[in-house]
This record gives sequence, structure tokens and C-alpha cells, in this order.
Amino acid sequence: MSPDRALDELAELPYADLGFAKLDLHREIRNGLPEAIYAEGKRSEDLSAIVARMLEAHGRVLVTRVRPEMAAALSAIHPDGAHHERARIWTLGQGAPIAGPPIAVVAAGTSDLPVAEEAAVCLAWFGHEVERGYDVGIAGLHRLLGRLPALRRAGVVVAVAGMDGALPTVVASLVASPVVAVPTSVGYGASFSGLAALLTMLNGCAPGVGVVNIDNGYGAAVLASRIARLGRPAG
Amino acid sequence: MSPDRALDELAELPYADLGFAKLDLHREIRNGLPEAIYAEGKRSEDLSAIVARMLEAHGRVLVTRVRPEMAAALSAIHPDGAHHERARIWTLGQGAPIAGPPIAVVAAGTSDLPVAEEAAVCLAWFGHEVERGYDVGIAGLHRLLGRLPALRRAGVVVAVAGMDGALPTVVASLVASPVVAVPTSVGYGASFSGLAALLTMLNGCAPGVGVVNIDNGYGAAVLASRIARLGRPAG
Amino acid sequence: MSPDRALDELAELPYADLGFAKLDLHREIRNGLPEAIYAEGKRSEDLSAIVARMLEAHGRVLVTRVRPEMAAALSAIHPDGAHHERARIWTLGQGAPIAGPPIAVVAAGTSDLPVAEEAAVCLAWFGHEVERGYDVGIAGLHRLLGRLPALRRAGVVVAVAGMDGALPTVVASLVASPVVAVPTSVGYGASFSGLAALLTMLNGCAPGVGVVNIDNGYGAAVLASRIARLGRPAG
Amino acid sequence: MSPDRALDELAELPYADLGFAKLDLHREIRNGLPEAIYAEGKRSEDLSAIVARMLEAHGRVLVTRVRPEMAAALSAIHPDGAHHERARIWTLGQGAPIAGPPIAVVAAGTSDLPVAEEAAVCLAWFGHEVERGYDVGIAGLHRLLGRLPALRRAGVVVAVAGMDGALPTVVASLVASPVVAVPTSVGYGASFSGLAALLTMLNGCAPGVGVVNIDNGYGAAVLASRIARLGRPAG
Amino acid sequence: MSPDRALDELAELPYADLGFAKLDLHREIRNGLPEAIYAEGKRSEDLSAIVARMLEAHGRVLVTRVRPEMAAALSAIHPDGAHHERARIWTLGQGAPIAGPPIAVVAAGTSDLPVAEEAAVCLAWFGHEVERGYDVGIAGLHRLLGRLPALRRAGVVVAVAGMDGALPTVVASLVASPVVAVPTSVGYGASFSGLAALLTMLNGCAPGVGVVNIDNGYGAAVLASRIARLGRPAG
Amino acid sequence: MSPDRALDELAELPYADLGFAKLDLHREIRNGLPEAIYAEGKRSEDLSAIVARMLEAHGRVLVTRVRPEMAAALSAIHPDGAHHERARIWTLGQGAPIAGPPIAVVAAGTSDLPVAEEAAVCLAWFGHEVERGYDVGIAGLHRLLGRLPALRRAGVVVAVAGMDGALPTVVASLVASPVVAVPTSVGYGASFSGLAALLTMLNGCAPGVGVVNIDNGYGAAVLASRIARLGRPAG
Amino acid sequence: MSPDRALDELAELPYADLGFAKLDLHREIRNGLPEAIYAEGKRSEDLSAIVARMLEAHGRVLVTRVRPEMAAALSAIHPDGAHHERARIWTLGQGAPIAGPPIAVVAAGTSDLPVAEEAAVCLAWFGHEVERGYDVGIAGLHRLLGRLPALRRAGVVVAVAGMDGALPTVVASLVASPVVAVPTSVGYGASFSGLAALLTMLNGCAPGVGVVNIDNGYGAAVLASRIARLGRPAG
Amino acid sequence: MSPDRALDELAELPYADLGFAKLDLHREIRNGLPEAIYAEGKRSEDLSAIVARMLEAHGRVLVTRVRPEMAAALSAIHPDGAHHERARIWTLGQGAPIAGPPIAVVAAGTSDLPVAEEAAVCLAWFGHEVERGYDVGIAGLHRLLGRLPALRRAGVVVAVAGMDGALPTVVASLVASPVVAVPTSVGYGASFSGLAALLTMLNGCAPGVGVVNIDNGYGAAVLASRIARLGRPAG
Repeated sequence: MSPDRALDELAELPYADLGFAKLDLHREIRNGLPEAIYAEGKRSEDLSAIVARMLEAHGRVLVTRVRPEMAAALSAIHPDGAHHERARIWTLGQGAPIAGPPIAVVAAGTSDLPVAEEAAVCLAWFGHEVERGYDVGIAGLHRLLGRLPALRRAGVVVAVAGMDGALPTVVASLVASPVVAVPTSVGYGASFSGLAALLTMLNGCAPGVGVVNIDNGYGAAVLASRIARLGRPAG
Repeated sequence: MSPDRALDELAELPYADLGFAKLDLHREIRNGLPEAIYAEGKRSEDLSAIVARMLEAHGRVLVTRVRPEMAAALSAIHPDGAHHERARIWTLGQGAPIAGPPIAVVAAGTSDLPVAEEAAVCLAWFGHEVERGYDVGIAGLHRLLGRLPALRRAGVVVAVAGMDGALPTVVASLVASPVVAVPTSVGYGASFSGLAALLTMLNGCAPGVGVVNIDNGYGAAVLASRIARLGRPAG
Repeated sequence: MSPDRALDELAELPYADLGFAKLDLHREIRNGLPEAIYAEGKRSEDLSAIVARMLEAHGRVLVTRVRPEMAAALSAIHPDGAHHERARIWTLGQGAPIAGPPIAVVAAGTSDLPVAEEAAVCLAWFGHEVERGYDVGIAGLHRLLGRLPALRRAGVVVAVAGMDGALPTVVASLVASPVVAVPTSVGYGASFSGLAALLTMLNGCAPGVGVVNIDNGYGAAVLASRIARLGRPAG
Repeated sequence: MSPDRALDELAELPYADLGFAKLDLHREIRNGLPEAIYAEGKRSEDLSAIVARMLEAHGRVLVTRVRPEMAAALSAIHPDGAHHERARIWTLGQGAPIAGPPIAVVAAGTSDLPVAEEAAVCLAWFGHEVERGYDVGIAGLHRLLGRLPALRRAGVVVAVAGMDGALPTVVASLVASPVVAVPTSVGYGASFSGLAALLTMLNGCAPGVGVVNIDNGYGAAVLASRIARLGRPAG
Repeated sequence: MSPDRALDELAELPYADLGFAKLDLHREIRNGLPEAIYAEGKRSEDLSAIVARMLEAHGRVLVTRVRPEMAAALSAIHPDGAHHERARIWTLGQGAPIAGPPIAVVAAGTSDLPVAEEAAVCLAWFGHEVERGYDVGIAGLHRLLGRLPALRRAGVVVAVAGMDGALPTVVASLVASPVVAVPTSVGYGASFSGLAALLTMLNGCAPGVGVVNIDNGYGAAVLASRIARLGRPAG
Repeated sequence: MSPDRALDELAELPYADLGFAKLDLHREIRNGLPEAIYAEGKRSEDLSAIVARMLEAHGRVLVTRVRPEMAAALSAIHPDGAHHERARIWTLGQGAPIAGPPIAVVAAGTSDLPVAEEAAVCLAWFGHEVERGYDVGIAGLHRLLGRLPALRRAGVVVAVAGMDGALPTVVASLVASPVVAVPTSVGYGASFSGLAALLTMLNGCAPGVGVVNIDNGYGAAVLASRIARLGRPAG
Repeated sequence: MSPDRALDELAELPYADLGFAKLDLHREIRNGLPEAIYAEGKRSEDLSAIVARMLEAHGRVLVTRVRPEMAAALSAIHPDGAHHERARIWTLGQGAPIAGPPIAVVAAGTSDLPVAEEAAVCLAWFGHEVERGYDVGIAGLHRLLGRLPALRRAGVVVAVAGMDGALPTVVASLVASPVVAVPTSVGYGASFSGLAALLTMLNGCAPGVGVVNIDNGYGAAVLASRIARLGRPAG
Repeated sequence: MSPDRALDELAELPYADLGFAKLDLHREIRNGLPEAIYAEGKRSEDLSAIVARMLEAHGRVLVTRVRPEMAAALSAIHPDGAHHERARIWTLGQGAPIAGPPIAVVAAGTSDLPVAEEAAVCLAWFGHEVERGYDVGIAGLHRLLGRLPALRRAGVVVAVAGMDGALPTVVASLVASPVVAVPTSVGYGASFSGLAALLTMLNGCAPGVGVVNIDNGYGAAVLASRIARLGRPAG
């Protein structure tokens, strides 16, 4: 079989071509989770069309970074949909329950909540048990230490922080599980839209931390879900 | 019990104070892995003293970023030690085999090998089964695809790349396991000592990737090990 | 002839001086393509005057980065004009058909479409055959591979990407034609308004890629057009 | 045919696995040019082995970024090899002559010569006619203008500059051919190892310029070669 | 006592859990000053609830970065509250007078006033005597020198500057007290939102200066207050 | 005389203290030009008070970065004032004519006009003869060369450019006078709000150029004026 | 008295002009501490001359950033001098004992010791009681907590850290004294020569921290000394 | 006359083509000063050839950034040449005295001397009277003020500073002449090789300052010379 032929074969994997977008209907088989829809920058009618096509294929859908009016438009068409306001997420249907360890989501400050909630809502929708612990920044260590039993029970910890970028480092030094760190763009002055938190998290001395992009609660949830699923028989 | 008293108690956790350094002898209990020794910038006699004290406490030790002459000096004192030259690591003893899934370590180019080997040698020493796949950058996709069966067998993939920072993204789009991405400082021009690779890895569109610091093969190994141990009964 | 005299001669090349702007009427002879008008930041009456003068000289005009209300104002004066909304372009008239190879324009995500369309509309106006392929980012490789036959037919490929900056590298590794890479400012977190995509494109390991400025669809089109015209007898 | 099977097929493209490296023997068919060897960071014995394998497969080889002692070692084994000292290149054999237009290589200052020569030697080895024009920075416009006839004859212009980053812009405004711009890391003060030249080249107002990575003479040559080959019948 | 038990004890320090926030009621005992409320990004009802809880615990409260409508809403509930408009602060109650040295607050330009006032109002509320000296940038040295007697009387000087980042250096060279430097994001061009001022302050040659985050008038006040309290018997 | 006494004397130079601002009434004697008023960020009533006080002291005033409504408010109080709209300047009165050489102000693109006009209007108000030459970027060299006689007559050239940052370099290579370079924040993509133009100007190879801050037309005018006054007897 | 006269007076403050350097003999009176000598980049004979002149004026001297051979040369001339090797300091004589509170110097890692020792040796020479606590990074919180009693006794804490930039934040949340933070350039990967630590320290959420320049142990000591002297009667 | 013909004429300006370099023999007529030779990165034999050709054309030559061994080699051939060691300059012959005002060169610290001397030696060679004032940083204002009479006599002031970047601002606020600011790469920590000084100089509030590239003493001298020559009749 010639190389060009091999590439041709590969090119025939299933996707739905909507013209302006190509939906990856095969992703769940390949990666374990169906494709999510990133709403930001999408036109209302395009978003509706994508949602409809995903529902047709999978019977459920998760839309991230959805603005309130977009969520309202979607709920008008699909009354069973749920709008998770603080998380800026709209969902319909639910992932199959996964028999893995619980996942802890901790956030340093109240302004980090939208990103933390994005992660938590995604994780719940993926079928994980989620333990939230908010406002536990290291400027008041005892608040974090108060969450320690829950953190130690978790199979993975997602740690979200903007100003207080050292939170994942401190968590990773206190638990034995992997830690997924999410810098947020919250902050002022020399925080440079999350760059300071990102660098703090990359340079922290306690190993066991993997960092995702600034404000990327969804990405953190996918990574944490992939990790937690290792705890199940079929891996 | 007063807060000051609680802090006092916490302060009594065991560590060995060598004057110039405090060895965290309790880390294995807390985090599942004993403390490793980072050799860079340490004076020869200090390094020897630390190694001796760690051996006394744990019966094994792993030293990273060790220069050849340092390794030779350590091996002169401890003839059972092993110098992993390309990985710049010196070890004595071995972790008990960990009954988890295999871990794949892939690297984009031949100049990324020292960092990839740092990760691979650490993982083997921690007790994991390691699958290496080197020179599989995306400028020759078929080289990577040739490793796909091994990647899909792995519980975690560590993907190391300098110039070719998109490697972890492509890997994460082809497997269902978590991917630990390690940018390397290899490159020239606008690579800015690994910054370009780091940004590429953080911005890649396929979720499921956690990034560690530039050139941090050891950190990647600890994270991958924490993840892989989830695959065992006791978590 | 004295140097000062030579400079004086050079200074007498034809341009139209509108006071606030000097139109380079000679550009088509010198560079093969007439000057385009960049609308952003221009006052409405100034833009109208420039368009009128260009039409007088060349009988056709292309205006980029035109806001809807500006386009409407131009169309009110020149009813034959066309507003390409997604591309933010207004044109009147058409370039002569050029008998060169087709040019492919591919984009990684749906939010990269405005920049990709800017390139595609310009190329069509310059007289090239354009093949569009959108939403083909490397997080779903088979979507890109599905476009491979079209990419291999093209004389030049314009590859547009924001979050998924590795697209041009992968394309350049699969085809033998030159690739024009356009980073876009689409993205969040550590994308830094397109800087991450720009660095990814500059550092990609597959040679054969030339990068233009972030979001510069027009510049990509001019470069691609200059390349494609090499395929014609008179060069 | 299942997707996994398609990927398996693709994975069977030919490459030579040397253990520490995988040579892409199929690249010439796919991309029109054989793989070059980047010597920097490679160990002497590894380099020799790769060169031997490439010669076996293709009968010719081009090694870039070769240090004098490496070149001497290669020439000792292969007496027919040629060391292009200023270009830091070692070659053996020659590409087939390509009946395309000449390619001009211009450089702004004498310190930009190594990068310009890297491009020029590669282009000659690829089979192109090369026109060199050095020390033609825009601080003495008449030196550049003295090269104008040669620049206008060329099918492509490669413009190399460090301190004088505006050179490609000025060239692109004077010719109708595509311009490949190469920033160099030459300079001091606020040149930031080529970043200033890179930004100047990306922001220049004359369209028709594609930029490659800082100091990447080889990459510029591959891009220019891909462009120039469009001038031939078989494209 | 086991380490885990020690951590448990520490975790029992008092805080008030409002669900979305955890108030650190113990901070005054530990750090000498009660926790302040940072209003930015907080929802109106959350802010009211936090203020109410803090008043219950301490009988006084200080809210920073308060927008006019937020301040009005708070004053409607607590008519005794005071809105310090230029400082963007709302306070209720007052700290006990602190028998330490006066604190001088100087600002370089009129646009630096909001940050300077934030520091000054906080300091006054903490119980310190404050000496203001505004518009004393080094472009008119005699204006600063006119404040010299007041600066020399002060126990600490807080120096606030945006464009004129050298102010703290000049102050530190003229007095014997510690200087707290606050860069502001005021400026245009290459000021990069305060980064230029920050770097100027860090690199100034006169020692005796400690820098806080850009625009962080509150942080400057806390640091200055901690310093000034050293002047009292109980330290 | 003691040092403290010397500082006291220096501190007694005349300035007008308005509380929120200190006007440097002595600046004309010390620096040759009276203080200008920077309107941005000043409250309307404060601006009026400062203007009134300056008029009282000097009989004339120049206000920069004035918004239309601010200018209207000032003109309502002082009907003799003039609003230079494009330059965002409001003036009353006029500087004494200075018998120096003419000053040329050139700008690369039409979007650089506001900054160029700020410089030109200031220079005229300072009493200089001004020669404007706009839209003369190096992408159409002959447009610039058409201005060469005027540039060579000038005692100083102010060169303003955003995208086309090489303009001052080219000018400096063609004339013997000093060149004042002003980068502007105009541009898109990798222009980074003027940083690219700034770096281009600092790194240009033709010496004889002094750079001022991004968008700082006023600063360029003061520098050019100080230079041109050297041409007069009393210097 | 005219302004020019006032400036003349000020200009007559005493300094010793060595031609290549001007020694500020008056600094102790003005700032409370004599000028220190920064050895880096100074020629050996110049350094000797400066040391001799300072000894003549003050009877004691402190030289920072002294290389071993420079220290040996100074000790050969002045046998009473002391070389503090790890701190890279050479001193002769001693500051007057100061009856203030003790100062704690803590460092996160063993590689931060040179900077921490620079601060500690300077402080001791200035006459302060110094408490050292090294290797107390937050990746092993109990090591820091073990130092808590000493930290709480101190009037000021100097906290030095490279990779572990959150150390000053954690310290500031546990004590009531001012904290002087010193980022170090120790680290690899995305530490960017101390920039990451600097940003971490500026953004930390616990107020009460003032930051000095990267690696600036001397500057930290001067600031801490100015603060601690507030604890004495004469201020 | 056709445009192409005009460009041809311009291209015939005289220069000497040495193959590896093109000497601009016409520069003195066009720009008032002959071309200087930048030695860095040039091979010894190339440098000798260029020097010989320049001497033939002009009878005098100035070489900057010359290393001691290069200078020795040049002096061996041309015994009349002079090596200015600290300035890293080699000269032969001398410019005609220029009857303009004196030029002051001031430097903040002793480590800024090489750059300051580069400027001063060039200026002297160009025929200007030079007034040096070194070690006058603003951390000891009286040292600078002691130079005030000399600064006020000068027609131009060149102000050189690394750590103490505010020096040009303070100078510009005290004199009426133009100030040429030269940032130096001297410094440590957050000085970022002169970037901090550069930003400080660009943002300083006292207008009348033009900045040249970091460490560019030669460029400062050319700019200052162009300015000072305005003071002569023929301008």
C-alpha cells in the first residue's frame, strides 16, 4: 500500500461537515470524551446548528464560554438544557457515571470562581464526583489546611489561582496525588493577565504539578478526567 | 489548643538538619516518593554529605543534574551507584516495582534526548515500566504514527519537545490517556530558550495535556508517576 | 550626473498627492499589483476621496479592514461595489485572470475565518483560483488529511491559525509547495494576541514556511500571489 | 476500513531507525527535497552514522551548522565532501539542476554573511542559480539600488539582515517577486538576539514578504527553492 | 503527636465560612491588622454580606477598589460609612491611634493621585499620622526639595510614581528612613502599564527602597504600617 | 553653609501650589520653554484652574492630549484660544518667533498624522518654521525622495512612523541634520503598540537619530526646538 | 538668593574626587549608613584606591561582589580585613552596635545562600543581631514552620528565594513584621533569571512585603537596617 | 526619464567594493561625517583591508569596538594610529576642528565609563571640545549638581547610565540644551541588559531627551555632533 493511499484512508475518518465547521464525531472513541463546543466568537445560528448536530450524533452536548443570551437562546430550543451561570456553561444530557476516585477542585480567591466552576461543572458532567474548596489561598494557610482531609481523599486535585499562584505548589507538597494547576487572568499590576501565576506554577519546587493554559478550566477538567479514569479496571 | 501551639506541632515534623540544608525525610510518607537531590550548584562535599544522609534514611537515592566529575566522585565512595550519562543522573538502589500501566516517553528530536532520558530514568527508578520513542516530531508524522500502538497501551504519555512544540497536542488528539508535556530549551532563533515550545504546548487545541517547566524531565516523571499509581488498587 | 540629481530624478515617480495621503499610482508596474486601501483609522471622507482617485487611475479598487457602515457608504456612492462581510473587504472591479496554479487557503478553527477570508477574497480579486478548507486544525488530524488532495494540487498553501499554530508545519511536511503561514490573534490565556501562534510557526521543524504578520490576511494574499505568478510564462 | 487500521497503514511509511534517530528517507518524494542533517548538538559518532545512512539511501547529503572539527572528521571519511566554511555547511554530491529562475541572496551587513551564505550554499546545492549581493543595507541606499537589476531578474529574493531589518521591506517595494526575509541574531543593545529585526520584518508596510526564523538560512533556502520550482512545467 | 494530627490542629484556626468566601477573622491577632475587603469583581450582594460579617466580628471595616455605586449601596445600609472617592475606598469605624512616627506619602504627578490616596486613606484608617506631598516629580527637583523637611521627619516614606519612576530613588538618597515604592500604571507609550516604572524602581542605585505591586496603594500602606509600628514600645 | 541649608535654598524656587498640582513657573528660565499642560486624566475643573494660573503667569498656554469636549470648555472661557483638532492640542497666545532653521516633520502613513501634527503644532507654537511631509513611508521610496530638498533644508527632521519604523533610518542616511524619531502605537499584529517601531528605530544602522517615547509628539517637538535654537547667536 | 546660587551651594557638598570615581563621604550623615563599594567591573587598582580613601575617611569599609582574587589582594594590603567567601564580601572594621530588634534572614533553597549571606553579612556589619534560617522553602512547609518562633521574634524578616518565590508571601501571612523579599536568579526553565520569582513576590496576596531587585542582598540589608533602626529612640 | 532609469542613476553613487564589504566613500558629503568601521565580528585581514581602503580615500579613519589584539595589529601596520583602550577605539588622523559649542559627556557610574568614553573619543575625533563628568548618578545628587555649570555651558549633553537610568531626565530638567541619552547594559537583576535603563529614559517626564540604542556610544556621538554643528554659520 502506497503512502499516499495510507493518508487517503486516514482522511476518511467520520466527521460532520457543516460548511463553516467540521464536527469530530469520532472523538469519544479515540479520546474517551466527546468534543465540547467552545461558544466564544461563534455566531448564534452557527452555534445552534452545531448543538443540533452534536445532539443528533451523541444525544448530549456541553457548551463552554457561553454568554447569558446565548444560553437563553439554546434553552428556548432545548428546554431540557441547563445553564451553569457562574461556570459560563450550557449542558444537555449527562456523561455516564464513572466509578473512579473523587476529584477535588480548589480555588485561591473568590475572583477565581468562574474558572474553578468551569472545571467543576465539566467534571461533574463527565461523571466524576467533585469536591469543591474555594477561597483557600496561601495568605491564610489554615483555610487550605482545613480542606486537607478532602484533598487527600481525592484521586486528582485541580488547583485554580490568579494572584496566589503558589497554591498548587503547596497542595502538591501536602498530597500524593497528581495536581492540575490552572492560572487565572485575575489580578492587577504585574500579574500581566495571568502570566505571573503561570510562571509561579511552572517554577514551584514541589513536583507533581501539570499546568494548563490560563483560564482553561475546561482543559483542566479533561486532563483530570483522563487521569481519574486510570483508577477504573478498563483504563 | 491555641493556633500558635498548632503551628508549633506542625513544625516538629521530622527533617535532618545538615546546617546548609534540611532533608525532608518524611516526604515519602506524605507524597509517595522520597526527595530527590538536585546537584546543580551544590558543592561537592555538600552533595556527598546529603547523599550519605539520604542513604542512611532510605537506603536509596537519586541525584539529578549531576556533572560527570560529580558522578565519578559519588561512584568512588559508593561503588554500587550507577551513572546514567545522557540523563545526567546518578542513582543508588531502586524503587519497588509499581504494578501500574506502562508509561511512554516520546521525544521530538535527537537534541531533546537528555531531558527525555531524565524523565525515563527517573520513572524506571520509581519502579515503572517505560516505553521510549525518540525522534518522532510532527515534521514526519508517520514516525510518530509508527509509535501509536505503544502510545495507546501506555497509562500516561510524557511528550518532550523543543522546536517541535506541537508534539504533545498531536499525541493528546490520538490517545485517551493523560499527556505530560515537557518543553525543552533546545532550539535557536525565536525559540527563546524553550519559551516558544512552552507557549505552543499551553495553547494547543487538544485537551488532556499538563505542562511542566522547561527542561524539567524530573518533574514530568514525578507527575507521571503520581498519575500511573492511580491505576493500582490502593491508589 | 551628480548623486543629488539622481535622487531628484527618482523623486519624480508618479503619485497622486491628496494632501493627507499620497497614492502610489505606479505600484502595479513596479510590484505587479495595484496599491490596496487599508480603511482602519481613516476618516470616512478621506476614504471616499482615496477610493475615487484610485478608481480614476486604475478602474478598480480593493479596500481592506472596512467596517460595515464604511462599506455601506462606499456602496451608496458606487453601487457596483461588493462588500465581503466576513472578510471585512470592499471591492469594485476585478483583477485580470491569471493563468497560474490554484491557491489553497486552510484555517484551523472557525474563529480564524475572518483572516482566512481576507486572504481568500484578495486572492480571488487578484485573479487566482482559490480552494478553501476550514476547521482543519491538528487536534483532529483526519480533518486536515481529508483536504490533502486539494493541498497537493495547489501551487501555494496559505495556512491560517490562532490556537493551533502547528498547522502550517504539518501542512509543509505533507506537501511540496511553499506555505504562507498567518498567525491570528484569536485565542485566550497564554496566546498573547497571536504571539504564541507566531512563535510556533517560526519554530516549526518542517521547512518551506514563510510567516507574515499576525492577522495579516492581505499580506499573505500578496505573497501567495507573487509566488503563484511564477508559474506563468512571463514571470 | 477502521480508523485505527488507517493510522496503522500511515505508520508504515519508510524510515531508517538508527535507534537514536529516525531518518525520513521518504521526504524527497513527499516534499521535493531530501532531509538535511542539522549537526548542532549531535555527537560526532552519531553524525557519522547518520551521514553514512543518508549517503546509502540518496547518494548525497547536506549537513548544516557543522563546526570545523566535525567537517574535518567527515571529510576524513568521505574525501569527496566539501566544507563551506563561512556557511558552516558540509556537502557531498549535488542536487539535480533545476531549470527555474535565478534566486538572489542579499545581506545588509558583513556580519550577516554566515546566515546569507548558509542560504546561498543550500540553494546552489539544491540546483538553483544564485546571485549574491552583500553589504547592501538601507543606511546606504545606493548600494542596494546598485543591485536592482539583479534583484529584478530573480524569481525569488532572499533578504538577510540583523541591525538593518528594513531591508526586505525596501526590496519588496522595488521588485515584483516574492521576498523571503531572514532576521539574524547579529546586533547589540536593543536588538535582543534578532527579535528587533524579526519584528521589523513582520511589520514592514510593503507586502510580498514571508519571514523565517532568526538565523535560519537553511529554512529560507528550502522556502525559496519550493517557490522557484513553481517556474518549471511539472510544478 | 502525628504530623497529620498537627495539620488538623492548624486547620482549626477560626474563620467565617460564607460559602463563596472564607473570612480570616484571626488575621488581626496574627498580622496586627484586620483583613481588608477588595471589592473589584465581587457581586454587590456578596460584598454586602462580607461587610456585614466583618462588622459583626470587628466593629469596623475597610473596603478598597470600590466603585461609586457600590459605595452608595453600602452607605445606604450603613449610614455611618465614609466614601473616600479619589481613593476608591469605603470605610466604617477607625483603627486605634498608633503612637508611631508620621508617614509621608509623595506622588510624582497628578495622575498618580488615586493610588497615593489609596495608601494615604488606608494609613490614616490604620491610625497613623499622614503627610501628603503631591506633584513632586523629579522633572522639577525643587518641588520635591520643598518637601524635604516633611520627608525627613517621617518614619517611612511611601513614594508613588508612574512616568517618573526615579522618584523613590531620589527620595531614598535624601532621607535615612525606609522608602516604600509604588509604581503606577499611569503613562503612555513605552510605559507598558507600569512595567517601566517598576523596573526603574527596582534598578535605582540608592538602597533603602522596597517595591510593591503596580497600583497597589493598599499593599504599600500595610507595609508602611508594619514598619512604623516598630517605633512603638511593644513592636 | 550646611548641606541641609543648601537643600532648603534650592527648595525655595518659585512654583504655584494649587493643592492638587504644583506649577513650575520657573521652567522657561531654566529650560527655555514654559511648562505645557498634559490634559489626559485631569478633571475638567482642575484643567481650567491650571490653565488660568498659567495664563496669569505667562500670558500664553499650550495644552496637549485635549479631548474635543475639554477644548470646547476651555474655548468657552477663553474665546481667543485655538483648538488644533487633529493634533489634540489647545493653545492660547504664541511663543516668540525664533530665528532658527526650519524644522521638517515627516510621517510614514496617514494613521501617524495625529502624532505628527502634535509635534508640528507644538513646534509652530514654539516659534519655528515647520515643513510637513506626510505619507512618505519607505514602501514607496520615491514619495520620500520627493521630499528630499525640503528635508535637506531643515535644521532638524522629526520622523514619525508606526508600521514603517525604518523611516528615520532612511532619512538619517540621506541628510546631515539630526533626526528625532517618534514611534507610534499605530499598527496591528506583532506591532505590540509601537514596540516594534521603537526597536526598529533604535537598531537602525544609520547614526544621527535620537528616539523619544512612543506617540510622544510633544516630546519630539521640545527636543527639536532645543536643537534648532542652537542655530541662534545666544544658543 | 537666586536659584542658580542655590544649586551652586548644593553642589558644594563634600565628596572625594578620584578622577574615575567620586566618593560620597557625606552619605552616612544623610542616610545613616556609609557608602558601600560594589566591586564588580572595577579594576583592581581602582578598587584599592577607593578602599584606601574610604578607610581614611571612615576607618571602615564594606566591599560587595568581590571575587576571591580581589579579596586576597585587599587582604594583602589590609591584613585586618575579613573575607566572607560565600557572601562575596570583604570588610574592614565594624559598624557601631545598634540596639534594635533582631533581623531574621530566611532562604528557600541551598542555591539561594550566596544572596542570603550577602544580606546577613551586611546586616551584621551594620550592627544588627541576625537570625539565619536556610532551606525553608514552601515545598516542605514544616521546615519553615520550625523557624516560626524566630521569625516572630524578629523586627524585620528578609526572605530570599529563587524557584520558590512564594516564600515571602507565606512568611508575611504568619508574622506581623515587615518582610523584605529578595528574588534570586537561581532556577532553570521558565524562571527567566529571577523574573518569575520577582513576579511571584509582587503578586502574592499577603500584604506587608517590599521587594528589592533580583539578587540584591545588599539592598535588602540596607532596607532592613533602615526599618530596624526605627525601633531605637533617635530614629 | 523613466523611473527605472532614475533608480539606475541613483545606483551609480560611488562606493568601493571589496567583495565582502562595500565602503560608502560618499558618506561624508551626504551626512557630514565619514563612515566609521565597526570592528566586532570582522576578521583581522578584512579589517586591515577596510582600514587601508578608507585611509586611501579619506586620509583618516576611526574604528570602534576594537579588541586589544586587533588594535595592536593595526598599530603594527600604521604606527601613527592611536588606541583608546577604555573606549575600545583605534583612530588614525583627526577631523578638522569644528567651531561649535562644547559637548558635555556625563556618566552615572564607573561601570558606564567604556560607553561614555566611546562617545567622548568619537566626539573629540570629530573635532568637538568635550567636557567629561563621570560618576554623577542621581543617588548622590550633589555630585551631579557640582557639574551643573559645565552642563549649562554645553551645546549638547550626552548622558550615559545603566542602573541609574533617570540621569538624562534630571539633566534635561536642569539645562536648556538637547540631551542625548545612552542606556548601558551594565547592571544586574531586573536590568535586563539595559532594557530597564532604556525604558526609564523613554518614560522620563522632562522633555528634551533623545535616546539611542543600548551601549551605542558611537551613535550618541554622531547625533551630538550633528546637533552641535548647527551652532556654526554654514549649518
